[in-house]
Amino acid sequence: MTAGGFDSATRISVGQALTAEDIAAAGLHADEDVARYATRLGDDALILSQRLSWWISRAPELEEDIALGNIALDLLGHARSLLTYAGTAGGKTEDDLAYFRDEDDFTCVHLVQLDPGDFGHTIARQLVYSLYAYELYTALSHSDDPTLAAIAQKAVKEVEYHVDHAWQWAMRLGDGTEESHRRMQAGLDQVWPFVDELFEDDDLTDRLKGVAVQPSSLRPAFDDAIRRVLAESTLELPSVPQARTGGRRGEHRESLGFVLAEMQSLARMHPGASW
Amino acid sequence: MTAGGFDSATRISVGQALTAEDIAAAGLHADEDVARYATRLGDDALILSQRLSWWISRAPELEEDIALGNIALDLLGHARSLLTYAGTAGGKTEDDLAYFRDEDDFTCVHLVQLDPGDFGHTIARQLVYSLYAYELYTALSHSDDPTLAAIAQKAVKEVEYHVDHAWQWAMRLGDGTEESHRRMQAGLDQVWPFVDELFEDDDLTDRLKGVAVQPSSLRPAFDDAIRRVLAESTLELPSVPQARTGGRRGEHRESLGFVLAEMQSLARMHPGASW
Repeated sequence: MTAGGFDSATRISVGQALTAEDIAAAGLHADEDVARYATRLGDDALILSQRLSWWISRAPELEEDIALGNIALDLLGHARSLLTYAGTAGGKTEDDLAYFRDEDDFTCVHLVQLDPGDFGHTIARQLVYSLYAYELYTALSHSDDPTLAAIAQKAVKEVEYHVDHAWQWAMRLGDGTEESHRRMQAGLDQVWPFVDELFEDDDLTDRLKGVAVQPSSLRPAFDDAIRRVLAESTLELPSVPQARTGGRRGEHRESLGFVLAEMQSLARMHPGASW
Repeated sequence: MTAGGFDSATRISVGQALTAEDIAAAGLHADEDVARYATRLGDDALILSQRLSWWISRAPELEEDIALGNIALDLLGHARSLLTYAGTAGGKTEDDLAYFRDEDDFTCVHLVQLDPGDFGHTIARQLVYSLYAYELYTALSHSDDPTLAAIAQKAVKEVEYHVDHAWQWAMRLGDGTEESHRRMQAGLDQVWPFVDELFEDDDLTDRLKGVAVQPSSLRPAFDDAIRRVLAESTLELPSVPQARTGGRRGEHRESLGFVLAEMQSLARMHPGASW
């Protein structure tokens, strides 16, 4: 069991409101495995943020434009902290990791890569991801790695709001009109094949016992919460087959290529430029 | 001179941090001219917000993704307050005005409609718009209409940060590399033909003396500030001809049609739906 191989952890204390800038300035040096773990969590948040920000000009209400925009920016904040920390292992910045890795070096789950779909699809994805992330960051708040613990403690407060947002919408759509119910259920059925991947353990999480969270350990609480929200929303738990997984190993869906092309093109056009 | 034709202004006091929800709940009834004035300011903020949010997945740094995203959400907040107030004249909501008006009922200036261009173009537009908006909301804080004054007092604090953001970037790009200087100057040259329109008086602002701000009265302070930032950034004041104006009369550039199509399509697909 390792606490993450710090050169210096003096500026990081659990419970501190931690920004990417704090992490970059703290002179940390994550070990390789911790960096890999931080990268996969950061990639999840980064790609979902890009997917969500698509809605900012397109939501069905101005108020919702703002809500989804704020959630996207929260996720981007989580991604920045996690990737900044991951970068300390190899002398890279958050921008190096976000803009100059190729597709097969990204380790996000497939759920966050899916095309936006309609609003029901987006709320279904938000519901699944936020409930998972809430359990994840709650558990990670007790990590033996104080930087991961501090990042998680900050993130979980924001994710609590994301859960609430998705939960309210699921009820409003599920228990709304016949059409809104149909679309919300269809959204759930579309994202459900990508749920199991969130809870897959692998060699990395096994090696990082006490530092990383075992994904499988989060499943019971997730299942309880999902059952409750679906019951309150008059929605059915989907019974659909699970899709092939592989995001953690760099095996991705075609859509990730388009997300990355959009996200990386400007930075790659002027690498190292003063903007 | 009118104070806006209130039914009740009891919940609106100058200096109060005013949300769109507060305005909607206050039982206000703006008169027609005040509503027209609030609409044009709201349209400027709304369309620029949509234009800026395009950058959220595309900025050259993750930190900048967040900064531009936050500015876009601030602008959307201003739009919501202004359009909510405008809607009280005819029993309409902010969403009615944002999603169910046709192109020639929008009264935004051409500056906010321009295609995003490159990052230099965006910073140039932000610089011009934010300096204008800062002077506008500062003056409007003293409006005889207490709702407009309260909206402006809240907005000006946020716009002060927008000015600072654009100013810092103008210096960083203008006084950076040869390439960043070239692009920043090119961006300024491209947005400059749309500056005069911001400061055009018309019948409406003449009729609303004491309530509205005379746009021409803001020009000297704007010119001073622009000269200062350009000097600090080693950039030239563009000497390019001004473009045809008409945004305030509903005469728009082709690009507005595309912005509106994107923004309005979902709401129009399910008018009055529970989402």
